[in-house]
Amino acid sequence: MLSDDQYSDFVIIGGVAAGTKAASVLARRMPKATITLFERSEHISYASCGLPYFASGDIGTFKELLLTPYGVERDTAFFRDVKGFAVHTNVEAVAIDRPAKNVTLRLKGQNHLVRHRYGKLVLATGGLPIHPPFPIPDIDTVSCFTRPEDAIKFRTMAESGKIESAVIIGGGLIGCELAEAVGGLWGIQTTLIEKADRLLPAMLDSEMAAIVERELVRKKVKVIKGANVNGVFNHDGRPSVSIEGGDKIDADYLFLALGIRPNVALASDAGLALGKSGAVMVDKRLRTSDPDIYAGGDCVESVHMITGEPCHLPMGSLANKHGRIIAENLAGGFAENPPVLGNMVVKVFDLSAGAVGLTYDKAVVTGFNPESVWGSFVDKPDYYPDKKSFVLKMIYSKTDDRLLGLQAAGDGDICRRLDVFSALLQKRSTVEDLLDFEHAYAPPFSEALDPLFQMASLAKAGKRGILTVNPSEIPEDHSETVLLDVRETAESSGQPIPETPRRKIINLPLGILRDANLDIDPAAEIFVICKRGPRAYQAVHILRKKGFGNSKIIGGGVQAALD
Amino acid sequence: MLSDDQYSDFVIIGGVAAGTKAASVLARRMPKATITLFERSEHISYASCGLPYFASGDIGTFKELLLTPYGVERDTAFFRDVKGFAVHTNVEAVAIDRPAKNVTLRLKGQNHLVRHRYGKLVLATGGLPIHPPFPIPDIDTVSCFTRPEDAIKFRTMAESGKIESAVIIGGGLIGCELAEAVGGLWGIQTTLIEKADRLLPAMLDSEMAAIVERELVRKKVKVIKGANVNGVFNHDGRPSVSIEGGDKIDADYLFLALGIRPNVALASDAGLALGKSGAVMVDKRLRTSDPDIYAGGDCVESVHMITGEPCHLPMGSLANKHGRIIAENLAGGFAENPPVLGNMVVKVFDLSAGAVGLTYDKAVVTGFNPESVWGSFVDKPDYYPDKKSFVLKMIYSKTDDRLLGLQAAGDGDICRRLDVFSALLQKRSTVEDLLDFEHAYAPPFSEALDPLFQMASLAKAGKRGILTVNPSEIPEDHSETVLLDVRETAESSGQPIPETPRRKIINLPLGILRDANLDIDPAAEIFVICKRGPRAYQAVHILRKKGFGNSKIIGGGVQAALD
Repeated sequence: MLSDDQYSDFVIIGGVAAGTKAASVLARRMPKATITLFERSEHISYASCGLPYFASGDIGTFKELLLTPYGVERDTAFFRDVKGFAVHTNVEAVAIDRPAKNVTLRLKGQNHLVRHRYGKLVLATGGLPIHPPFPIPDIDTVSCFTRPEDAIKFRTMAESGKIESAVIIGGGLIGCELAEAVGGLWGIQTTLIEKADRLLPAMLDSEMAAIVERELVRKKVKVIKGANVNGVFNHDGRPSVSIEGGDKIDADYLFLALGIRPNVALASDAGLALGKSGAVMVDKRLRTSDPDIYAGGDCVESVHMITGEPCHLPMGSLANKHGRIIAENLAGGFAENPPVLGNMVVKVFDLSAGAVGLTYDKAVVTGFNPESVWGSFVDKPDYYPDKKSFVLKMIYSKTDDRLLGLQAAGDGDICRRLDVFSALLQKRSTVEDLLDFEHAYAPPFSEALDPLFQMASLAKAGKRGILTVNPSEIPEDHSETVLLDVRETAESSGQPIPETPRRKIINLPLGILRDANLDIDPAAEIFVICKRGPRAYQAVHILRKKGFGNSKIIGGGVQAALD
Repeated sequence: MLSDDQYSDFVIIGGVAAGTKAASVLARRMPKATITLFERSEHISYASCGLPYFASGDIGTFKELLLTPYGVERDTAFFRDVKGFAVHTNVEAVAIDRPAKNVTLRLKGQNHLVRHRYGKLVLATGGLPIHPPFPIPDIDTVSCFTRPEDAIKFRTMAESGKIESAVIIGGGLIGCELAEAVGGLWGIQTTLIEKADRLLPAMLDSEMAAIVERELVRKKVKVIKGANVNGVFNHDGRPSVSIEGGDKIDADYLFLALGIRPNVALASDAGLALGKSGAVMVDKRLRTSDPDIYAGGDCVESVHMITGEPCHLPMGSLANKHGRIIAENLAGGFAENPPVLGNMVVKVFDLSAGAVGLTYDKAVVTGFNPESVWGSFVDKPDYYPDKKSFVLKMIYSKTDDRLLGLQAAGDGDICRRLDVFSALLQKRSTVEDLLDFEHAYAPPFSEALDPLFQMASLAKAGKRGILTVNPSEIPEDHSETVLLDVRETAESSGQPIPETPRRKIINLPLGILRDANLDIDPAAEIFVICKRGPRAYQAVHILRKKGFGNSKIIGGGVQAALD
């Protein structure tokens, strides 16, 4: 099948998202062109983002990740007959001869090499797991989680009941998805270890990551943060994790989920330019430094829309878009790859968490002058059945009110809010634009005022001196600090703010605050908390009228701080 | 309590959404001002949009519509103690003396009138039901549906089992919500009559309205379109509906749901200017033609963002925003009322339907050069459990690719898409912007390519001659027309395209199309259909390569045309 010195108008290396999409679109645009795709693994066009849900048992068989919506397998015959291009699996591209315009290929398990000449070449070589800076013992129960084989191996062992405990190193997106996959249906005692001081550090600020952590802990996952793993060892055939400081954790299974790095060896060896992020450098039309070679998907560098900085954002959604853009340009059209925002979402048991744009921390580092507000919401009016809740954090520029980022966590519909915010960020919008945004309203779907409107209102209130503070900063008592809980008495006793030796809490329902005699120093700093935020907002106004000017809202209330 | 010649810095007339919001915000901004609100009914600040769900039984008691999220009733004491302003219910404002700056008030059930002077006046008099052009018999079982009393009366009778049949005149938003409320839990035999040739004519084009109609019919609601009701009569104590042409329908209960008109009598009698739509004319800051009088909510006129035309859009979400804008301006701030898009959604049994921006019909009338595309989608990847589906129609300008409108229907998450489209319309975006939009992707929440991206791709394909046609236009056969069904054989036999005497259907699964010998005239017009659209899209490319250049996609496939 493979023979030396064949030629295709278009050769595509890599057959998951970007590669198959590029080839499919090209075959439609240029039906007379010869298009050949080489994929080094045996699987092509599988839904790689679905692997955690296959591992978890939510998806019955691996084959389901290979099917079209109408139940036909996306195999070599499918791409030939339906999409109109040639696919060769188990073929690895090992070198590119750019002057001669050919790629050197090796069939899996064979030493024989063949050359295939190209008119234009597309690199969609994807990503590889980041390896730790120490050696990994060669035992079957230590695994990354990027390939179908990784998921199939775990699933098979989990089904056989052989795994009672597991450790996941890395609390990013994949690590958190794996924590659910491992600890959920299979009931495996799971420990998640993250080096940073919080989970999902690239996506969430600390107080929002705390919400994800609380959900994991509720679901019996042990979370260890700020822990530097300095070795993994073979302990009688089982993995043993050594943490700096002396702790050791043995388990039946170990996942390394340290992130994805771009797979650039082929490009780099061929002398193609790499970007600052270490990924393949491409121009706006996804051309590499060689005008005859395009690249897309997890192997290329993106530009961040807000920071303007190069970054590496390996996401299936972007990879698919890259495929189309490459094909448009190769077919003589014109398409540009837009800068990225990093609109991300992850399911962690019953919780959804996500973010778009910059975190507060990232906004500071980038040189913005950011401010944050928080709010807790239900996704339908309180009187409507089956409502769910979520917490939002919005980051914007104090200098010019420009929107910078949104973070969300809860069991409610966060994607709707992330997506609207993404659209507004794309169009470089301000807090004022968010006030003007018109949401689809009817009680089965929304509250009359959209949560994003409320966030914008809080930002505006900040400008008038009505300040919202971080929900993780429920203060300890000192002589000038008061923590005022304005919930109804039944709520306060049903879900009390945790007492600490130094923390003095005053419970005073909002309804009696206006006429109450407050035994508080007028100069005291008063932090007001309620369930979600609106009562604290109202209370701060009442307090100001009563002469307590130094009072602040604990953003998002108890729902953000404790739920 | 009420006495002559009292004075308030701010007097607000009307206490549902806009009025209470304006008063609440004002009381926070200007804590020393005297603020008095008069409401003619006994209820204040009830969730009027929740009335259909109280009528349906989804919400247990009417009182739930009066409660804050934390279970406290929003009554006179609540507004005084918590919000900080005075409320008088059962007080009707009957006249405004603008030179003297006072309103004349009448306490319900009394003839005695009092005057109350104002510094600034806010009109939030809301809307009234549109009455038909014929007299309504004075029987208890004929009712509009705008007030709490309307909902309470129906609910009480429905619970007592006295209603076996009902007719709803008017197939707009309220009419469709009522069809579910009446025909759902209560199992009442329900007939919905609409004058236009389709349901929801202001929101949806015909083929999208047909999806709503199919759901109603599935749920045993009888739908009569294009029917002009010319009288309602008292037939032995029961309502009897007479339809032009001779039909008569008797029922146990009749709802008149002809729409909402602005309640402008007070403003109009006082000589305030009305707009072209008949609603109170206001400037961008919601000032009426009298600089001391502001107005907001269902009684005022809006400007449409895309057409630039005045319009009347009675929606609770806008009314709440008006309240804030009025208060900001009265408190010495600056806030402008943005033009409206009309982002609307309605639940009809298990279906959601909605729209934002212009319908195709409206875009034509307005003078745009519109084009449409359709697509059917699932809201998660097909391999993921519990996915739901929906159909989208997008309208954009052929001239400059400007986005004009989106319509959606299905059991899946349509609000997310309507809201993103609303944000993009607000920022005057194009098809290209939609391609660049970055959605939140993970398999539990989304497909890798967002449905809106797919709609933009279809629009781009149209420019290359790959045309999508209206899903209601499954053609009849004539010698130059072929209907090609490219679904798998099992799908085609499981859910066949309805046969008609003249319609010739060729079933040919996509997988064998490329190599098939087609006994079709190369000049024939070929309409290709599949389940949702993508296979037809691919098939059209294969057909073109085979020399059948005149082939078109039936937009959204079987899901849009038949489901």
